[in-house]
Amino acid sequence: METMISREVVDIAREIKEMKIRGAGRIARAAAKALKIAAENYRGKTIEGYLRYINAVARLLISTRPTAVSLPNAVTYILSRIERVESTSLADYISVTVAAAEEFIEYSKNAVKNIALIGSGRISDGDSILTHCNSSAALSVIIEAWRSGKKIQVYATETRPKYQGHITVRQLAEAGVKVTLIPDSAVRLLMKKLDKVIVGADTVAANGAVVNKIGTSQLALAAKEANVDFFVAAETYKFSPATVLGELVEIEERPAAEVIDLEFLRAHPNIKVRNPAFDVTPPEYIDAIITERGLIPPQAAYLVLVKEYGWAITDHYLKATSEISDEILP
Amino acid sequence: METMISREVVDIAREIKEMKIRGAGRIARAAAKALKIAAENYRGKTIEGYLRYINAVARLLISTRPTAVSLPNAVTYILSRIERVESTSLADYISVTVAAAEEFIEYSKNAVKNIALIGSGRISDGDSILTHCNSSAALSVIIEAWRSGKKIQVYATETRPKYQGHITVRQLAEAGVKVTLIPDSAVRLLMKKLDKVIVGADTVAANGAVVNKIGTSQLALAAKEANVDFFVAAETYKFSPATVLGELVEIEERPAAEVIDLEFLRAHPNIKVRNPAFDVTPPEYIDAIITERGLIPPQAAYLVLVKEYGWAITDHYLKATSEISDEILP
Amino acid sequence: METMISREVVDIAREIKEMKIRGAGRIARAAAKALKIAAENYRGKTIEGYLRYINAVARLLISTRPTAVSLPNAVTYILSRIERVESTSLADYISVTVAAAEEFIEYSKNAVKNIALIGSGRISDGDSILTHCNSSAALSVIIEAWRSGKKIQVYATETRPKYQGHITVRQLAEAGVKVTLIPDSAVRLLMKKLDKVIVGADTVAANGAVVNKIGTSQLALAAKEANVDFFVAAETYKFSPATVLGELVEIEERPAAEVIDLEFLRAHPNIKVRNPAFDVTPPEYIDAIITERGLIPPQAAYLVLVKEYGWAITDHYLKATSEISDEILP
Amino acid sequence: METMISREVVDIAREIKEMKIRGAGRIARAAAKALKIAAENYRGKTIEGYLRYINAVARLLISTRPTAVSLPNAVTYILSRIERVESTSLADYISVTVAAAEEFIEYSKNAVKNIALIGSGRISDGDSILTHCNSSAALSVIIEAWRSGKKIQVYATETRPKYQGHITVRQLAEAGVKVTLIPDSAVRLLMKKLDKVIVGADTVAANGAVVNKIGTSQLALAAKEANVDFFVAAETYKFSPATVLGELVEIEERPAAEVIDLEFLRAHPNIKVRNPAFDVTPPEYIDAIITERGLIPPQAAYLVLVKEYGWAITDHYLKATSEISDEILP
Amino acid sequence: METMISREVVDIAREIKEMKIRGAGRIARAAAKALKIAAENYRGKTIEGYLRYINAVARLLISTRPTAVSLPNAVTYILSRIERVESTSLADYISVTVAAAEEFIEYSKNAVKNIALIGSGRISDGDSILTHCNSSAALSVIIEAWRSGKKIQVYATETRPKYQGHITVRQLAEAGVKVTLIPDSAVRLLMKKLDKVIVGADTVAANGAVVNKIGTSQLALAAKEANVDFFVAAETYKFSPATVLGELVEIEERPAAEVIDLEFLRAHPNIKVRNPAFDVTPPEYIDAIITERGLIPPQAAYLVLVKEYGWAITDHYLKATSEISDEILP
Amino acid sequence: METMISREVVDIAREIKEMKIRGAGRIARAAAKALKIAAENYRGKTIEGYLRYINAVARLLISTRPTAVSLPNAVTYILSRIERVESTSLADYISVTVAAAEEFIEYSKNAVKNIALIGSGRISDGDSILTHCNSSAALSVIIEAWRSGKKIQVYATETRPKYQGHITVRQLAEAGVKVTLIPDSAVRLLMKKLDKVIVGADTVAANGAVVNKIGTSQLALAAKEANVDFFVAAETYKFSPATVLGELVEIEERPAAEVIDLEFLRAHPNIKVRNPAFDVTPPEYIDAIITERGLIPPQAAYLVLVKEYGWAITDHYLKATSEISDEILP
Repeated sequence: METMISREVVDIAREIKEMKIRGAGRIARAAAKALKIAAENYRGKTIEGYLRYINAVARLLISTRPTAVSLPNAVTYILSRIERVESTSLADYISVTVAAAEEFIEYSKNAVKNIALIGSGRISDGDSILTHCNSSAALSVIIEAWRSGKKIQVYATETRPKYQGHITVRQLAEAGVKVTLIPDSAVRLLMKKLDKVIVGADTVAANGAVVNKIGTSQLALAAKEANVDFFVAAETYKFSPATVLGELVEIEERPAAEVIDLEFLRAHPNIKVRNPAFDVTPPEYIDAIITERGLIPPQAAYLVLVKEYGWAITDHYLKATSEISDEILP
Repeated sequence: METMISREVVDIAREIKEMKIRGAGRIARAAAKALKIAAENYRGKTIEGYLRYINAVARLLISTRPTAVSLPNAVTYILSRIERVESTSLADYISVTVAAAEEFIEYSKNAVKNIALIGSGRISDGDSILTHCNSSAALSVIIEAWRSGKKIQVYATETRPKYQGHITVRQLAEAGVKVTLIPDSAVRLLMKKLDKVIVGADTVAANGAVVNKIGTSQLALAAKEANVDFFVAAETYKFSPATVLGELVEIEERPAAEVIDLEFLRAHPNIKVRNPAFDVTPPEYIDAIITERGLIPPQAAYLVLVKEYGWAITDHYLKATSEISDEILP
Repeated sequence: METMISREVVDIAREIKEMKIRGAGRIARAAAKALKIAAENYRGKTIEGYLRYINAVARLLISTRPTAVSLPNAVTYILSRIERVESTSLADYISVTVAAAEEFIEYSKNAVKNIALIGSGRISDGDSILTHCNSSAALSVIIEAWRSGKKIQVYATETRPKYQGHITVRQLAEAGVKVTLIPDSAVRLLMKKLDKVIVGADTVAANGAVVNKIGTSQLALAAKEANVDFFVAAETYKFSPATVLGELVEIEERPAAEVIDLEFLRAHPNIKVRNPAFDVTPPEYIDAIITERGLIPPQAAYLVLVKEYGWAITDHYLKATSEISDEILP
Repeated sequence: METMISREVVDIAREIKEMKIRGAGRIARAAAKALKIAAENYRGKTIEGYLRYINAVARLLISTRPTAVSLPNAVTYILSRIERVESTSLADYISVTVAAAEEFIEYSKNAVKNIALIGSGRISDGDSILTHCNSSAALSVIIEAWRSGKKIQVYATETRPKYQGHITVRQLAEAGVKVTLIPDSAVRLLMKKLDKVIVGADTVAANGAVVNKIGTSQLALAAKEANVDFFVAAETYKFSPATVLGELVEIEERPAAEVIDLEFLRAHPNIKVRNPAFDVTPPEYIDAIITERGLIPPQAAYLVLVKEYGWAITDHYLKATSEISDEILP
Repeated sequence: METMISREVVDIAREIKEMKIRGAGRIARAAAKALKIAAENYRGKTIEGYLRYINAVARLLISTRPTAVSLPNAVTYILSRIERVESTSLADYISVTVAAAEEFIEYSKNAVKNIALIGSGRISDGDSILTHCNSSAALSVIIEAWRSGKKIQVYATETRPKYQGHITVRQLAEAGVKVTLIPDSAVRLLMKKLDKVIVGADTVAANGAVVNKIGTSQLALAAKEANVDFFVAAETYKFSPATVLGELVEIEERPAAEVIDLEFLRAHPNIKVRNPAFDVTPPEYIDAIITERGLIPPQAAYLVLVKEYGWAITDHYLKATSEISDEILP
Repeated sequence: METMISREVVDIAREIKEMKIRGAGRIARAAAKALKIAAENYRGKTIEGYLRYINAVARLLISTRPTAVSLPNAVTYILSRIERVESTSLADYISVTVAAAEEFIEYSKNAVKNIALIGSGRISDGDSILTHCNSSAALSVIIEAWRSGKKIQVYATETRPKYQGHITVRQLAEAGVKVTLIPDSAVRLLMKKLDKVIVGADTVAANGAVVNKIGTSQLALAAKEANVDFFVAAETYKFSPATVLGELVEIEERPAAEVIDLEFLRAHPNIKVRNPAFDVTPPEYIDAIITERGLIPPQAAYLVLVKEYGWAITDHYLKATSEISDEILP
């Protein structure tokens, strides 16, 4: 008989699904923790049974937020270490699972700090820096630069329609950093006065393109025009292995009510609202991605993915396609 | 004894000053009307007295809104016709004033219609068009295209922080045009789906640069990147003769309260707000300016200014500088 | 009773319509000649009657090839001179017509020679030059450079699908010029070896954009990328006054049979063919337009049009629009 | 006594040489098959003799088509596996040869299918796609997208002078895809209506530059200008290790008779023809290369080469250069 | 008998030739003065004789420095006014000559001051400005900005090989301006810290291209890349009417000894030196030309030339070409 | 008791410090030699003592020239091999040190020759090549191309203010290469005549940016504009691992006296001098970096660093940051 997935694990999955646990890093760590608990709770006797069980837990976790790349990356990290075990003892499988989960959690917690240290090295005393939306990784770079004594000036967009820029200016002000809030449309006018732009990332694609809050690609374009350095701060578990396989990153469309009163829309049926949540910044607009693995050119994203997942990403495909009929070929 | 400036004229000047009369066109026509009334009310006997009087009225009018280029342009239009009079009869001076004022009013009223006709010729059936802020000239082009039977799709930015985009979508919807409202930061993402961008202008400088609502230059940059046609709709009395003489167009900074609650700012003294009202779009980002004098490349702005004001703009300077000491030369 | 339009005039109109008379210059001169003959043949007695008659002839001529800009420009040239006559003698009207027609013919014949002289001045000894399609103006520049002793190398595209490049290489070879024929797709590869590109124009728009044989804009783009000078050789009567009024230059779509065997298409109903005859080169890709009025930057096209037609182009519009209802305004 | 190379192997070599076997993939697989047959036919007794023999076969095969990169890559793939054998048994050497050959053949056959699957993921429903020449890899991506239910529109250039575009439109039409044929010179005009460009590759260089049919770089340039995604579909055995060592990819010049009637050329000795078969597209114009190893940025080509061949590519050189005299150094 | 050209006039011509009189402005004024003296010294009796005489003086003056555009422009200015005289009195011809010469001198002297006033309006308090070589017009703009109280920082290139930058830093320092000297190769590194670049011009061509001291186009390219405003300060008599007719501006090659010791060259016959004196900055790299006629976009150069010389520039050509044989046409 | 560092080793350190040993390659080899001598001279008895000793030597060597990246790279190369030793015999540690030092010296000596061979393959017969400053690696490429029989033309900038170009032209002339010396400001003017630019590098950063002699980035910008290939020749031990960690490459400011006479500066206290020694060329301006590991795209610099130093570069950081307080996070 199969072991049931314990309530504790199910609760974590639910909290991720209901967005009580939010933020790419926190979600990833929660998933790792859930796998650890699941491993410790396993009551079966066979390795085979354990593998079925732990894969079921993995599927449950991944299904909670299908588009957040950090979640499957955390799960895959742990599963890949289990797959490498060559042993006939069930205990070995369980202990590898627990160790991998703890390792991932530790790694994740240190990653942002590492990004802060590496990124702050690129900031010079007296720099004027623009940021967009509200990214932990980007702000940690700025705050670390400030704490290490660099006199910097920060500008933050208000980031319509959800005004995440208000959170950003508050967090920076609380850390003692001087910050100026601007409307999104004032970016290009002010760009010539800036030295650097630093933003976060939701997902980094295999070709180095960065998916991030709507408006990011406009900042990048204006920075390119003005020859201002444009940095993205992102942990490597935000790099998407699926994009290596050609998968498109879908752009979420958010509710019209975030942009305008629904009453108004009902009164004017001719008026529609577009409210995309993200856009894609092409790699040639990005000077470097600041990761915990160092400062990399965006084109090295593929290298990071291969280093982490190996040819394995595509080997699996190559085998599968050998069974496809030749009809597909012209 | 000099004739007093009549109450009727003073009232118009006040209404312009207090922004009861708004919009570049309406202000210009009101100023012309004020000069006409002033001419008709003149009670003096000498040409010399009349010229002093009418110049005083002109100065009064110009002083009400020193930065609106259409106002001094309207006044200069009429004064320049008075200067050309070669007569010894006071009546001739007065009748030229009245005629010039009426001519300008007529010209101004027809200019937007002419722009609508000329501009709508550039719109093709099925076009997707983006506009920004709320410009009479730009919207008249779109509405005329729609009325002439072209099936167009219009996108309007919300235009933070004052949301003039809400007025725009309502006006277009009332005219029957289908329109979609978007946040300012979604411009680049949607640009590839667009065929044209049409915006208005506050001021057109001698080198073809266009001063308009903040965010306009970001639209233009994104349109350039995506190879989308970028049009500016502007009456020629928005062309600034002062810029020929090197004068910079000043960018108005508007109150922080338009962007964020002042309470919030008081709570965080580290936070500042920048809220510039306009930006400058360089001529190389503009495909054409739609004027009532036809569709012109932005670099022809100088030609329009010379046609309208002649070498006279600079001849005056050349004479004045002849009295400056040679010390200025290296 | 009105004078009938004579057979001689009607014959010219028919020959233009049936494309027996071809080429922008020849068509324009034929139309001028027709107006001259019509004037000489006038048998009426009144100025009013003459004006009705000559305008009827003008309309007949223009209707033969509605899209060729040189034809209405020739006719407008002559009509505008008739309009300026201030006389009560019919003979004056007729003699002005005849003189204007002769003047235009003379002007046109000299224009290409003038372009050849002016343009050849820009060619240096040892230059490698690329041309496209088969333009009299462009080739006259090249041939004149050759005759004046400059050792040049010419490359000509074959210009699919009609292979006008074959005519070009023959004409150049007959003039003694060394020429190399290349496929259209080899343009970018060879561009780095070239010093100049010289092409003709079908129409020059008010903003300096040049409508010419399909493929021209690709040459211009590749020249821009390689920093190679790109010249357009065009008589000023190819400048389109209608484009000042926002009119779009329509791109003619030519028969599929020029591209592929119709049999083949019938066998594969899924296959379509696109065969546009022209494309539009934006002004920022053009270094200069060589006209008989000198070497001008493309942005000066509007100046040439204003010089030739004056504010009159738009004054007419401004009057007409004063009768349009205000509904058009938002 | 050395084993003779068998007739079967020699026949394959001849068929490759005489272009009876064509296409990068088919040539590579034929070479692998020839090595397998050669191994199976070996009649000698010593490992040393076998290595001499199999290297002779390899040289024979490579000599048949010195410029096709897939051929030496296939041979090197197998030889490199033989070199790694550490055994004193001749049988091991032979079996490794056979296994490596079969592995390569299998790999190669699956590679295009894998590319089709990965690449089709990047195509969205409703996309308009342009292709050039006739590439199996590029067409398999398009056809797979079509089969998976995406409603796409395809444009194909005719690809002068050999009209490979005619084969392309037929193959696509037979697969049920709607396709439009266009002349090469119409590419830029149509580019704004397109969403994607997908082409194949003859060779991918170490810096990510792609050598492909003449005209490809013009497509890429126009796509860049219009911000249209440009994809190259290429198996990794088209990546050239020689380019890592600085070798230039030579551009083949093809006969003038492909472009124009030779009779015509004889009649005009002044006329030459240039007919280059390929051009080079720089990496900054390529959004991604679709390989069976996933979607990679062109700059990752070097990574693929290092992954496949290792530092070994250059280690060999480093040893060799240690014997060169120091005179070479300034 | 013809009047001899007086010693005073010949002396001026000689001083121009021997470069005792230097600088575009001073040369032009000296030529005007020479014509004035010549007119006053005329001893003949007939208008016809006078015209021959004054044209001989003009030719003498122009021949002294055939490449300096300000010299023939000054002479043409005066001759064109003589040509317009319609009188039968010799005295009228002479007085017009004298008046025109004085007018030109006055105009020229005021032009730089006017440029200083207009240009300084574009400079903001706190600007960092780069200049190159040693231009009166450019420096007068900077000095006037400084005198009007703007706190500016100036950078000057040393301007190898003649080190005119040393004169520039001295002149600016004497005027009280703070200035930093830099090597020519440090321009791009410092560009991001700059707000404006202001240089002079030797010649402005019809398409707005500016011929100036070698290195200017490199400054303009780096300014474009960094989005820094690039201004050229030039009196309109530096605009070249000859370029309208296609004439190329020749680039002077200066002696090798300016770059390196001749001894060194003799020791190494393999070494050559290139030392061009000027380069050409294309119009798209220039934000505006500051003239005494106002701030103009470079593309308006043609307008200035037409305003000053009229269609006359090319009318002359059109007549001449009517006698050329038709053979030139393809 | 610890072994003293021998006089021989201290002497090498001093010679590096006092710049008697110069050039990235020579410094690196001298440091390796010093470590080898130190190992051979060790008189202690314990492994622990040896490691302390050899690390002390390493620190001494690195401290001599803290900014030269080749020096710590050489030292790290040897230390990393010592760290991998797993033995209880002191002799093994010493022999590994000696072997690693000899290996590095050999590697380094061959690297430039390998670059010469690889790079010369990219040079075609008849090429015109520009170089800047005086780089062994770049010149070896040029000289090897010349020796292999390619008829090339070389241009060298004089490289103000230190005139390293004079050494370059002499070295090339002595090798028989024809070379032309030009002022730094003539680069853009001549660029259109060039086929290639080849320069050296002081440091290559993780994102592919190249730090080299001031003026290099100007050459690269002008080459980009003119579509001329731009190559950097650099051994991989010039790649900076520190930049992976975000460290900025500091730009050395050199004495004013190199630019102008100090007497002159004392006389004009308003005049300052800026004299930066290096600038940074962004990766998008570089076509390829020629290394002894092959021709790589600049974006592959990170790959080279990871290949050489592995995740180890950042693993160390990740561990260290785990002890940092969470306060740093927003």
